[in-house]
Amino acid sequence: MNTPQRISGVLSPVVTPFTSDLAPSPERFVRQCRWLLSQNVGLAVFGTNSEANSLSVDEKVELLDRLVGSGLDPARMMPGTGHCALPDSVRLTAHAVKLGAGGVLMLPPFYYKGVSDEGLFRSFAEVIERVGEARLRVYLYHIPPVAQVPVTLGLVERLRKAYPQQIAGMKDSGGDWKNTQAFLDAFAKDGFDVFPGAETFLLQGMRHGAVGCISATANVNPAAIARLYETWRAADADAQQARLDEIRGIFAKFPMIPALKAAVAHWSGTPDWATVRPPLVALTREQSAALVAQLEHVRFTMPGLRG
Amino acid sequence: MNTPQRISGVLSPVVTPFTSDLAPSPERFVRQCRWLLSQNVGLAVFGTNSEANSLSVDEKVELLDRLVGSGLDPARMMPGTGHCALPDSVRLTAHAVKLGAGGVLMLPPFYYKGVSDEGLFRSFAEVIERVGEARLRVYLYHIPPVAQVPVTLGLVERLRKAYPQQIAGMKDSGGDWKNTQAFLDAFAKDGFDVFPGAETFLLQGMRHGAVGCISATANVNPAAIARLYETWRAADADAQQARLDEIRGIFAKFPMIPALKAAVAHWSGTPDWATVRPPLVALTREQSAALVAQLEHVRFTMPGLRG
Repeated sequence: MNTPQRISGVLSPVVTPFTSDLAPSPERFVRQCRWLLSQNVGLAVFGTNSEANSLSVDEKVELLDRLVGSGLDPARMMPGTGHCALPDSVRLTAHAVKLGAGGVLMLPPFYYKGVSDEGLFRSFAEVIERVGEARLRVYLYHIPPVAQVPVTLGLVERLRKAYPQQIAGMKDSGGDWKNTQAFLDAFAKDGFDVFPGAETFLLQGMRHGAVGCISATANVNPAAIARLYETWRAADADAQQARLDEIRGIFAKFPMIPALKAAVAHWSGTPDWATVRPPLVALTREQSAALVAQLEHVRFTMPGLRG
Repeated sequence: MNTPQRISGVLSPVVTPFTSDLAPSPERFVRQCRWLLSQNVGLAVFGTNSEANSLSVDEKVELLDRLVGSGLDPARMMPGTGHCALPDSVRLTAHAVKLGAGGVLMLPPFYYKGVSDEGLFRSFAEVIERVGEARLRVYLYHIPPVAQVPVTLGLVERLRKAYPQQIAGMKDSGGDWKNTQAFLDAFAKDGFDVFPGAETFLLQGMRHGAVGCISATANVNPAAIARLYETWRAADADAQQARLDEIRGIFAKFPMIPALKAAVAHWSGTPDWATVRPPLVALTREQSAALVAQLEHVRFTMPGLRG
């Protein structure tokens, strides 16, 4: 318990199921997470692709309780716990640690723009201090296209120095390989675990010291992405990567979160899965049909999802 | 009660006082709001300059309760109630209406970027429907430099059509007069109240149909800004505007929120007022001294604040 196994491999920012009146559906959430684990993929619940920032802290606490209460292994969970408001980040982080989560993925506070590394250092430090748990493992979440507030090399260096035990790694969703490589080069050999934010960089990442990836499309193509992680040294690794890119390329033609949910709705046979919370908008019937047709054209399917 | 007076004039996005351990101080908050009202300025509490997005909903509910419980007039309040998460926006908006707030200033959900007007329409509509109060008055908050999610002419048109009673106006903090003028030209004659987001555009705004302004510096220079609002047709209006611009120009040389708090700390004789929550960082001692010196050089003061 004192030196828990670090999370590695492929994780899915699990899409959050809503009922038609926009309430979260814990039953469908548990079922989806169970399926993802069966596909060898960990649970980065409450990520950007989970519409986590459209959920209240109460809703996230309830969903996390349901997962753990249903017997899913918390060591395989890395819930997103970073909010704009300090008390919100503290509350959800503390709750996740109490439940035994393997780690937490922490956005910087993202409302105020152009803030200093000093201010961001104090934000993360304040959360870590208030949670006050030696077994807390924080993964910093760098996603400048959305949060607009970056995690820099200098910030990571300061945080690691102050909290060597708690600062465990990062997710880099910047989409810029050079940035990912800079973090890998600076910190990977030294126990700081870098997850590229898409399987696009999985093979390249593994070749440079990454420990897996956390990717939107791990919601829909989990087994194949997990297989490349397991076999990245194999002769067919580049071919595997090309196949992953082909599938992702189809999803990327549509708004990503609604497209993930449309695919889950289709292959699970549960139309309600297509529901998103505003400000997102579900795919139109025509878009969904086009997505499914293009995926079927390349013989994509989601085995074991229906049931 | 059924047709309440619309809020107009100058409002302050009231800075939120913290203790040295970063907890809100309701006593100082009530005192500050009482002073602002005495200066003829309304209370746009929980705005950007209030560090509202660094506060949890619980904290905001408690602060609002304390204001109203202390006898301050809720009709003079326009709390910010827009959050990323739908349940948070619904909860605080409903609470504000229940307390009798004259209006609410509503940010769009601001985490997801590049969202459609359709998605934003559904967000605001969902909040209005769930709150379900005829006396709700929503002021849409356009602040693209921070929220990065704009409020467009088309969105306002759709919302007004769907909710003619509830959609009361907007705050335009874009800093682009042409945009403010476009909203004034399109909607001002027709009962849609536009507040420029800084006194920089107060005189120009009043000459084009604005109903006041909501400005950071109304925290520190309230009476003078309110006076220009009251006397904008007077011969000295341009001279008044120039004087307001001079004061604002000094604050604008520093990070705005820490500078506002440094000034309140200095002129109230309460050093704790300088405290900000991360990710913001208070002015250094040198910066504070420079700010005060420059303000004193132009004979600025904050009468009646100390006490």
